[in-house]
Amino acid sequence: MNLTLALIREAHARIKDKINRTPVLTSATLDAQARARLFFKCENFQKVGAFKARGATNAVFLLADAEAHRGVATHSSGNHAAALARAAGLRGIPAHIVMPNNASQAKQAAVARYGAHIVLCEPTLAARESTCERLIAATGAALIHPYNDMRVMAGQGTTAVELLESLPELDVLLCPVGGGGQLAGVAVASKSMKPSIRVVGVEPAAADDAYRSFKAGHIIPSVNPQTIADGLRSSLGKLPFAEIQRYVDEIVTVSEQSIVHSMRTIWEVMKIIIEPSAAVPYAALLENKLDIAGQRVGIILSGGNLDLDTLPWMKSRG
Amino acid sequence: MNLTLALIREAHARIKDKINRTPVLTSATLDAQARARLFFKCENFQKVGAFKARGATNAVFLLADAEAHRGVATHSSGNHAAALARAAGLRGIPAHIVMPNNASQAKQAAVARYGAHIVLCEPTLAARESTCERLIAATGAALIHPYNDMRVMAGQGTTAVELLESLPELDVLLCPVGGGGQLAGVAVASKSMKPSIRVVGVEPAAADDAYRSFKAGHIIPSVNPQTIADGLRSSLGKLPFAEIQRYVDEIVTVSEQSIVHSMRTIWEVMKIIIEPSAAVPYAALLENKLDIAGQRVGIILSGGNLDLDTLPWMKSRG
Repeated sequence: MNLTLALIREAHARIKDKINRTPVLTSATLDAQARARLFFKCENFQKVGAFKARGATNAVFLLADAEAHRGVATHSSGNHAAALARAAGLRGIPAHIVMPNNASQAKQAAVARYGAHIVLCEPTLAARESTCERLIAATGAALIHPYNDMRVMAGQGTTAVELLESLPELDVLLCPVGGGGQLAGVAVASKSMKPSIRVVGVEPAAADDAYRSFKAGHIIPSVNPQTIADGLRSSLGKLPFAEIQRYVDEIVTVSEQSIVHSMRTIWEVMKIIIEPSAAVPYAALLENKLDIAGQRVGIILSGGNLDLDTLPWMKSRG
Repeated sequence: MNLTLALIREAHARIKDKINRTPVLTSATLDAQARARLFFKCENFQKVGAFKARGATNAVFLLADAEAHRGVATHSSGNHAAALARAAGLRGIPAHIVMPNNASQAKQAAVARYGAHIVLCEPTLAARESTCERLIAATGAALIHPYNDMRVMAGQGTTAVELLESLPELDVLLCPVGGGGQLAGVAVASKSMKPSIRVVGVEPAAADDAYRSFKAGHIIPSVNPQTIADGLRSSLGKLPFAEIQRYVDEIVTVSEQSIVHSMRTIWEVMKIIIEPSAAVPYAALLENKLDIAGQRVGIILSGGNLDLDTLPWMKSRG
């Protein structure tokens, strides 16, 4: 089964009363610097502070009642965990979230606040997966993978539906890529709505498995990537990769330094809080990686959750 | 001469194509905590990052051509300096800005970027005033005081015109108070548009000259106030005080700790960047200083300019 615009539109109808239709912001200062017109889609203002609310909500509300009452499960220490916990709470079903035992108190608290059941495990991928499998075997909960899941990908694509509904004149669309769920959904939606649009994935050079996989034509997994963009450390999923191969025009990479510069510029100029992962697409403009002069460029700011005690420009000095 | 709604509406007509009509944001999370409906007027998204763009622009564009060509002058190290520099640039006239020689490079650069002529002086009020006087004597520039000026106060009042045009149902309006220009303009506009609205000024307890002056019925100047809310350290002006006495219902004070807590809460929950001064009104809700249960409360977020290298919750640990 392939992801289609029809599935994404169904997802939008299903979730639109349960999420925010996020605003699109512009900046004359950043337009002048880029010599283009930039339109920032602010998923940092989304429920739970990230686009992940879209996919998790779609997946939870797609479950049949018989399946739903046994609950949902995932392993994540990030935005998907909070998004799934919230969506399960909205539907009134249990959510079981496996988190590494070194996840910050702040992240655990964010998930617990939505009423989820947190199961801690050793901070390895193997421990996370085996703990999640045992939990599912014991509870009968449905696994909602953070990105390798059609229901989740369809939900993430709704960002592009909103963006192109309000700005059909866009020439280019820039989207971060980690596990690939958002880029896949956004690419399917935007190319189906406007075949002439150019869809570009932007990835940290320090976690460039999607870039290399896209070039090679097969998945090349990442090994322990070290990037400040914590939302983009996941390895590219098989289902998103298939859509990315069909619909994405190119993937470019950016340096860690550019990501930090991008994040700080958006904070200072636009007065909004975005997390490092959300700063990745604009970093491609700072690096002059793309010829966008005179064009109308959509940029997805994917989220705004981070620890305000340790900002990256402070870390890099320490 | 008193400030009137007519003067404020004229100011709005004069400046509205030169400033942003800033958005009003809401937060279900903060509403639940306050047990009220909060409407945040985002002057942090204003031109130059603060409401000061309104008053400075009104003053500059009110000048007769004969006066304007000699330029404008002020002494300020903050948002008014940048706002005046920008407004003068828009009109194509010189701006002379006296700044203390310990003003940060970032602040000097912000003013210089708008093409202003910067004159450095010793960091005392006496030196700033005498330097400014000499400059005006030499150039014939018009002094545009940051708050003790009817044209500036009229411009600042336009924030309330926009807020009440879009939300006539507001019950309460909270506004920071420092020199008093914004509170005076906002109070005149909102009480004239809706006499039943309750207008509350909120001030740092560590710089409580407006609170004490309001109680006493005459101006009690502040002496070297130490507050993190750097925009609110100025002593209350005579012209704003007259309007505040007539139109403001009450002034309450908040602790430094509450200001920092308020700022961090708004950053974390709303994902927007506000400066410490802008966090002062919401701090009054955190301290339960006001009975607003079930009411519709307008809150002016006055600006978003601060040094991102030293955030107050970090300083307080250092």
